[in-house]
Amino acid sequence: MKHFLSVTDVSDIQALVAKANEAKSDPWRHESLGHHKTLGLLFFNPSLRTRLSTVKAAQHLGMKVLVMNVSQDSWQLETEDGVVMDGGKAEHVKEAAAVVGQYCDIISVRSFPTLVDREADYAEKLLHAFVNHSGRPVVNMESSTVHPLQSLADVQTIEGNRLTDRPKVVMSWAPHIKALPQAVPNSFAQWMAQMDYDFVITAPDGFELAEAFTNGVQQTADQEAALKNADFVYVKNWSSFHDYGAVGRFPDWCIDGEKMALTNNGRFMHCLPVRRNVVVSDQVLDDPRALHLEQANNRLWAAQAVLQSILEDL
Amino acid sequence: MKHFLSVTDVSDIQALVAKANEAKSDPWRHESLGHHKTLGLLFFNPSLRTRLSTVKAAQHLGMKVLVMNVSQDSWQLETEDGVVMDGGKAEHVKEAAAVVGQYCDIISVRSFPTLVDREADYAEKLLHAFVNHSGRPVVNMESSTVHPLQSLADVQTIEGNRLTDRPKVVMSWAPHIKALPQAVPNSFAQWMAQMDYDFVITAPDGFELAEAFTNGVQQTADQEAALKNADFVYVKNWSSFHDYGAVGRFPDWCIDGEKMALTNNGRFMHCLPVRRNVVVSDQVLDDPRALHLEQANNRLWAAQAVLQSILEDL
Amino acid sequence: MKHFLSVTDVSDIQALVAKANEAKSDPWRHESLGHHKTLGLLFFNPSLRTRLSTVKAAQHLGMKVLVMNVSQDSWQLETEDGVVMDGGKAEHVKEAAAVVGQYCDIISVRSFPTLVDREADYAEKLLHAFVNHSGRPVVNMESSTVHPLQSLADVQTIEGNRLTDRPKVVMSWAPHIKALPQAVPNSFAQWMAQMDYDFVITAPDGFELAEAFTNGVQQTADQEAALKNADFVYVKNWSSFHDYGAVGRFPDWCIDGEKMALTNNGRFMHCLPVRRNVVVSDQVLDDPRALHLEQANNRLWAAQAVLQSILEDL
Repeated sequence: MKHFLSVTDVSDIQALVAKANEAKSDPWRHESLGHHKTLGLLFFNPSLRTRLSTVKAAQHLGMKVLVMNVSQDSWQLETEDGVVMDGGKAEHVKEAAAVVGQYCDIISVRSFPTLVDREADYAEKLLHAFVNHSGRPVVNMESSTVHPLQSLADVQTIEGNRLTDRPKVVMSWAPHIKALPQAVPNSFAQWMAQMDYDFVITAPDGFELAEAFTNGVQQTADQEAALKNADFVYVKNWSSFHDYGAVGRFPDWCIDGEKMALTNNGRFMHCLPVRRNVVVSDQVLDDPRALHLEQANNRLWAAQAVLQSILEDL
Repeated sequence: MKHFLSVTDVSDIQALVAKANEAKSDPWRHESLGHHKTLGLLFFNPSLRTRLSTVKAAQHLGMKVLVMNVSQDSWQLETEDGVVMDGGKAEHVKEAAAVVGQYCDIISVRSFPTLVDREADYAEKLLHAFVNHSGRPVVNMESSTVHPLQSLADVQTIEGNRLTDRPKVVMSWAPHIKALPQAVPNSFAQWMAQMDYDFVITAPDGFELAEAFTNGVQQTADQEAALKNADFVYVKNWSSFHDYGAVGRFPDWCIDGEKMALTNNGRFMHCLPVRRNVVVSDQVLDDPRALHLEQANNRLWAAQAVLQSILEDL
Repeated sequence: MKHFLSVTDVSDIQALVAKANEAKSDPWRHESLGHHKTLGLLFFNPSLRTRLSTVKAAQHLGMKVLVMNVSQDSWQLETEDGVVMDGGKAEHVKEAAAVVGQYCDIISVRSFPTLVDREADYAEKLLHAFVNHSGRPVVNMESSTVHPLQSLADVQTIEGNRLTDRPKVVMSWAPHIKALPQAVPNSFAQWMAQMDYDFVITAPDGFELAEAFTNGVQQTADQEAALKNADFVYVKNWSSFHDYGAVGRFPDWCIDGEKMALTNNGRFMHCLPVRRNVVVSDQVLDDPRALHLEQANNRLWAAQAVLQSILEDL
């Protein structure tokens, strides 16, 4: 694997999931693979799960890590060409990416969207600038529009728990008090399109995801109908793509036991962090069928499979 | 050792001190013990000494470390059950602890009190939630009410410097400009109660520590009388337990050379950081009898003894 | 080498450059040298390049690292003697340095000037306090007045690219929107004074560097004359030493292709971060003759040469 920016960098999802499962059963098996290699982790936004799981994955592979917590405030990077840089941005991404590239063998980057300027967010300039100017493989640790490490962990979780050849997977929009990115649901939709699942998205009117990511999958505002016979229910809030960044206040969309009863003994999924009794009820989260902790666990193995794949092709 | 939350987790203090002394004389002796084990350090409040000493202790034991600097602002955790999480707290400690537990073999946590809500602080909900939901041994790196790693280092320091079988140890309240937690003095009192020392606490009226921690030891407002014949003088500010969080402004309680002259050639102790000429005079701090730097040094060996004890029982 | 505070700690610059070049060609050659040794990195100000390059250098040498990001806000240190510490500074550098010294074998410190109190800045009290109270070798990762790791990388870069025995090296003041320290230009001037180069400084009137650092080298306000026949043009902004901390607004001093045409096919240098089209034009930065990325790369090898030299003398 050269880069891991989105699902389009993955030639064989099943092989990658198999690699993640192998890592899960034997974490230190390839500890010599990353010997004398350095992973740089660049956080333009805060991170807990992603940082821990990615650092630990790199440790399993014997890599050194360099963690850079650079908030938008302390180290804003210019991404436009030809600009007179007399404003708040003290460094151009051309220099920043090239310098970091000289210190690391693989670079992983996290950078959230503004949720204000849709065109800029969806252009993913920062991520592509690191690809273009660092000279190194780049791993996306959540960008403006996608979060493929999460999606890989999600697919690994579904594959490890499905009871049928072609499970019904429903992604159900959930209420939230803040404007959240579309990265997780966009990415999940992209990966689902590569799987032979019965995949449905349900969200209130106006909260349909961008079609570039959904590949024509059904997006319905009828949550009840969508949940019927679902084997997996991926619950997630996102702000509006169409009325960009708008927050939806629809408390009825909260997933509770009654709604889960519509499913085929469905497994609850969420990428965390989750607001209890806003996004989903305590009852559903505390039910043994809930998979959110297994998803979080698989984040580690997903990251390890990706790093291993890149190291193998260095 | 299963957890290290307070002195009650220690079955044999002298054996633990002996282990700390062994680490001090041969730091890398057990470097293979922590091979392929990961210590997660979770800081809900800033830390210098504790972070450095705990990380270095883990390195001596061959462990990997994952450091998470999560301020109360960036990652507030809900600790109440059944709450509708529509406020400032984005994640429940149930999920947070379980996730971190999946990435680490041992978890250490630092979380300071509010000094506003005494009942909540003294309930230590966050710490116990990590015990209950992480599935891992938990090390207390200073919680709302106790700081046992400091106390173990303090005991190691006293044991290493006492000239008599039963030294007189005085903990003397000191002035400060800010409201400080009761964790260090509570914890020191708890550990002293386990030692065969002549232990006295002296503090202004209204600054008595909670009896749950002092085990009936004498708490007097007569500083002069308390200091008489002291072999060790542990100087420390704390805010009021009774008028919870109130700051005491009693400059006369500052320890200077005149007061130390009342002691039995007593050794000065402080956990650091210390405000010179507010808590204690330059003269006392710069006297070779002062033990504050040895205490800070012993923080490393105390942490190493605790981690080693937990690793041995994993 | 005992300490690395400035060029005066270097007995043989060419030997140190040779060591840096050796590290560059064989990074892990001395991986056993730092076995069981710990480098503490203490950042009183933010850092990207310096942190990454110094940590990686330590990793190449097999050292453990302890990184302490202590902002001026969270951990202000008192450096004056005899003060009643009842203000914003919670710890004296005497204690802080002694404690950190007990946890580390080598200490590296970054601390920027106030740019308000010239006398205090140029006294370098914090740096010297770490030398005096830590009991450990101290590496300057940029202090109020000098940045010798940068200068060593700069010398390595010039030595690796010079085509003549005695190249002409011009340091040219550049415009900026903020008040920047004099540390990089002071330090560069100090190192240049040790080299057999034709070295010239050009800056607007009032922006002459302190003579203590320039050793009588020519400082001219005639930029055009200075640039004539230059082999290397080190472009850098600094605030005024004489009207201390004053920002100079002279857009004409920006280096563009026209000015570089005055040189002897000169190589552009800058320590980064650089504001494009304020300090220097895109054309100059994107020209293959620009050396700023090689300088950034050499930061790693300069740090490694310094750490290696100190380790060899521990």
